[in-house]
Amino acid sequence: MQNKIPKRSAKQNRLYEIIFEAETRGGKLFDVALFAAIMLSVTATILNSVQSVHETYGVWLTGINWLFTLLFTVEYGLRLYCARNPVRYARSFFGVVDLLAVLPAYLSLFIPGTRFLDVIRILRMLRIFRVMKMVQYVNDGDLLLNALTASRRKIGIFLFTVLTLVVILGSLMYVIEGTEHGFTSIPVGIYWAIVTLTTVGYGDISPQTGLGQTLAAFIMIIGYSIIAVPTGIISAEVGASAVRKKLSKICPACNTSDHDPDAAHCKHCGATLA
Amino acid sequence: MQNKIPKRSAKQNRLYEIIFEAETRGGKLFDVALFAAIMLSVTATILNSVQSVHETYGVWLTGINWLFTLLFTVEYGLRLYCARNPVRYARSFFGVVDLLAVLPAYLSLFIPGTRFLDVIRILRMLRIFRVMKMVQYVNDGDLLLNALTASRRKIGIFLFTVLTLVVILGSLMYVIEGTEHGFTSIPVGIYWAIVTLTTVGYGDISPQTGLGQTLAAFIMIIGYSIIAVPTGIISAEVGASAVRKKLSKICPACNTSDHDPDAAHCKHCGATLA
Amino acid sequence: MQNKIPKRSAKQNRLYEIIFEAETRGGKLFDVALFAAIMLSVTATILNSVQSVHETYGVWLTGINWLFTLLFTVEYGLRLYCARNPVRYARSFFGVVDLLAVLPAYLSLFIPGTRFLDVIRILRMLRIFRVMKMVQYVNDGDLLLNALTASRRKIGIFLFTVLTLVVILGSLMYVIEGTEHGFTSIPVGIYWAIVTLTTVGYGDISPQTGLGQTLAAFIMIIGYSIIAVPTGIISAEVGASAVRKKLSKICPACNTSDHDPDAAHCKHCGATLA
Amino acid sequence: MQNKIPKRSAKQNRLYEIIFEAETRGGKLFDVALFAAIMLSVTATILNSVQSVHETYGVWLTGINWLFTLLFTVEYGLRLYCARNPVRYARSFFGVVDLLAVLPAYLSLFIPGTRFLDVIRILRMLRIFRVMKMVQYVNDGDLLLNALTASRRKIGIFLFTVLTLVVILGSLMYVIEGTEHGFTSIPVGIYWAIVTLTTVGYGDISPQTGLGQTLAAFIMIIGYSIIAVPTGIISAEVGASAVRKKLSKICPACNTSDHDPDAAHCKHCGATLA
Repeated sequence: MQNKIPKRSAKQNRLYEIIFEAETRGGKLFDVALFAAIMLSVTATILNSVQSVHETYGVWLTGINWLFTLLFTVEYGLRLYCARNPVRYARSFFGVVDLLAVLPAYLSLFIPGTRFLDVIRILRMLRIFRVMKMVQYVNDGDLLLNALTASRRKIGIFLFTVLTLVVILGSLMYVIEGTEHGFTSIPVGIYWAIVTLTTVGYGDISPQTGLGQTLAAFIMIIGYSIIAVPTGIISAEVGASAVRKKLSKICPACNTSDHDPDAAHCKHCGATLA
Repeated sequence: MQNKIPKRSAKQNRLYEIIFEAETRGGKLFDVALFAAIMLSVTATILNSVQSVHETYGVWLTGINWLFTLLFTVEYGLRLYCARNPVRYARSFFGVVDLLAVLPAYLSLFIPGTRFLDVIRILRMLRIFRVMKMVQYVNDGDLLLNALTASRRKIGIFLFTVLTLVVILGSLMYVIEGTEHGFTSIPVGIYWAIVTLTTVGYGDISPQTGLGQTLAAFIMIIGYSIIAVPTGIISAEVGASAVRKKLSKICPACNTSDHDPDAAHCKHCGATLA
Repeated sequence: MQNKIPKRSAKQNRLYEIIFEAETRGGKLFDVALFAAIMLSVTATILNSVQSVHETYGVWLTGINWLFTLLFTVEYGLRLYCARNPVRYARSFFGVVDLLAVLPAYLSLFIPGTRFLDVIRILRMLRIFRVMKMVQYVNDGDLLLNALTASRRKIGIFLFTVLTLVVILGSLMYVIEGTEHGFTSIPVGIYWAIVTLTTVGYGDISPQTGLGQTLAAFIMIIGYSIIAVPTGIISAEVGASAVRKKLSKICPACNTSDHDPDAAHCKHCGATLA
Repeated sequence: MQNKIPKRSAKQNRLYEIIFEAETRGGKLFDVALFAAIMLSVTATILNSVQSVHETYGVWLTGINWLFTLLFTVEYGLRLYCARNPVRYARSFFGVVDLLAVLPAYLSLFIPGTRFLDVIRILRMLRIFRVMKMVQYVNDGDLLLNALTASRRKIGIFLFTVLTLVVILGSLMYVIEGTEHGFTSIPVGIYWAIVTLTTVGYGDISPQTGLGQTLAAFIMIIGYSIIAVPTGIISAEVGASAVRKKLSKICPACNTSDHDPDAAHCKHCGATLA
């Protein structure tokens, strides 16, 4: 990414301030307008999917949505035009979301039905939170994200265990119950095992034989017990994260951290802590 | 609220003691009577909704309920009359509950069916707990409430994430499964996504296609994993609240806190702790 | 209970050793035999309820169960005979369980069907654990029981909140959905609210109207969030119990507790810790 | 196991390096090939159970699976041949899994249907993780396993309580609801109690009488409350395990442990910590 960035015009800079930042009056107005546009557009899509509403207001709702699609397309173009590094923007999380927000509408010209997927625009709301400097929320969100990131390996192992379990149990149920009781294939058996292990329990497929019901009961008690594992991991991690944050007092003299929250002096060099 | 409070008569003061307080003999008797009246009234409403009971005792139960409605209306009037600041009482949580406890009955004269809503009277029970000075319960309730309040932002972020997720997943399932498998609109899809993500799983709507079942399995495992997040938040917070409470010993000399629960001397200045 | 205890014969003392204790050879044999008798009796009752088994072996299984009923009745009589304080034994937890273990069988002579309730004999297994001095298990069980006891008020508040919630929500759904969608009375509405809030979700009753489904979705998300509350309470309490237990080091000189696990000297008087 | 191990040939040693280890180039290649073979074989079995796929590609998929069965059989033989202690290998966890991975295929020659059970091959994937020295994952997996092991007695007590509860509640429901409402025997009642207590809630069997629904509501609220118990146990244990690990710094001079993670000197004797 060390390609020379071309000199930016004053126009680009003014647009950048409005579209990407939220300090100026124009920037704030833009964010509020964007917020309203996203909400209206998503609501229109949702309403348009209801048969009775569609029959009466379908033309209007479709029209409104195309209007917002055009607006968001223009906005995406402007973002690319005024971004400091267009390639980086286009590849960033929010760049991809901005593109995904308009793609389904254009796609629906070729594949009908996909236009309903433009509810993905709701993901653009995430930007609003970040831009509007809701610092406390972002901090707390980061705390949760950190807890999840720090536990990613433990959760990975947990999910791998769950997947191994449902493949074996699903196959076992397919062999025990068979096609005549709704277990028409191993994938269906795996689907049933997931529905059962996660305690969702639709009841669209359920074991009929005694052996099948015994195995099912066994799976349920396992599922009931192991749900404790991710909870325990996250609990311990959220607790530890909060502690880490509170204890991240740093000595100005010797630069060590992790002092007691009420320590007056550094426990290593004795310097006074701020 | 700085309007001059009118001089109160002796009658108002006596009534206040009985109705709002619980120290005097009259006050205690009033609370016990209120407790019984609320329970009887709610029980009568519930029984009256059962068809077989209604056919035999309907007239009696309706009569009893109108009697309690009149009693509670008179009580509400007396509370307004004897309260030290009637406007503040009427706007307080308990003032609103007291009003809501009688409104549905009068409303049912115009809109039939709403009379069943007077079970909201059960909320008046909360006052009993507060008035009867069940100190330990109120303390523990406050501890829980504090834990929830301290976690409100984290839970807010969590709920927003869940809502974003169900809107996108619900729309996706509407596109994949379509009207012929029960997913008649995006709102129905969102309803299904909530039913699945929270592991309730009624089974009134369930995916039929392979792709839909795969997506559903994916949603279930997500739901199963992220239920750990609010649990972790609350666990850490309840733990921290309890610790905070225990450790909130303050040195009378140097004003620092967070001493060991059994410390006899301040660890900073050596002063004797209370 | 200060009634003079009559002088005990040698026979009573020998029986007491065998029946109530587990140190002697006879006592151990008795416990093993009791263990087997309970298991066999419960298994016979369960098998006897299966139609196909009952048709073939019904006479045998009923006979076996009557045999065990007689044995347990004799045993109950002997326990009363040799107990140091028969009244106290009869009123103790295990005394009541021992009586309940034989009552359903005799009751079934008058009310058919109740004989299946003698599976309550399985509760007698609890005695085996206690008698056999499975110390570690009893200790850990006590730790759990302590955590539950210490949290009983918090859990009480939680259950009261849940009950208030389901009464109000159940009535609301009864008014919204009405008899034609299966919500035939407020008790049924409350039953549905509990099925939904606890995420069980049978699907035997489910909302059909848009308003009802919206309210249901709202209930599910509440239920999904508040399940974190008891978990958080118990987590914090089990953690605290374990910590309390580990930290319960007591100074031999000044008798204070709660020293650091690795402390060499009492932090109050300086005496050497064991 | 102190039988004299026979002298090993160079061939055996070379094979051992390739099959059991992953340091050499040949060893790494073997592991990657094994990984691919397991995945392909399991996928083939799963696809072969889908009716529409089986009709078109059944012959091919069956052929591929027999090929892998032969390969795995040869591999099992080679493992036995080159293992340092063949008896110990055959009795080890992975030895048993390796045998189970080929048995169902041969069994299916006698009992049709069992061939689907060779999805158990997926368990062989566990070896890959161990062999490939994914140290961090193995460490975190061990942390979880330790937490589970340390809690095994508490979880045992919990499961025993749950089992006692479902036997009694299942029998009670059988007596209350009876055969005409789907509760055809006590085992079915126990199955229903497990489905309800674990909040799975299929809805294939559900109480119809008022008394039955009241008892069911009671069970659900119990289930909802006690799910907190294992979660609390695991949470506390994972937290404690992590703490133990972090604090397991040992002083080389005085041999005491439990120093702060960032301590430079032993807090007992002042010696420098590693």
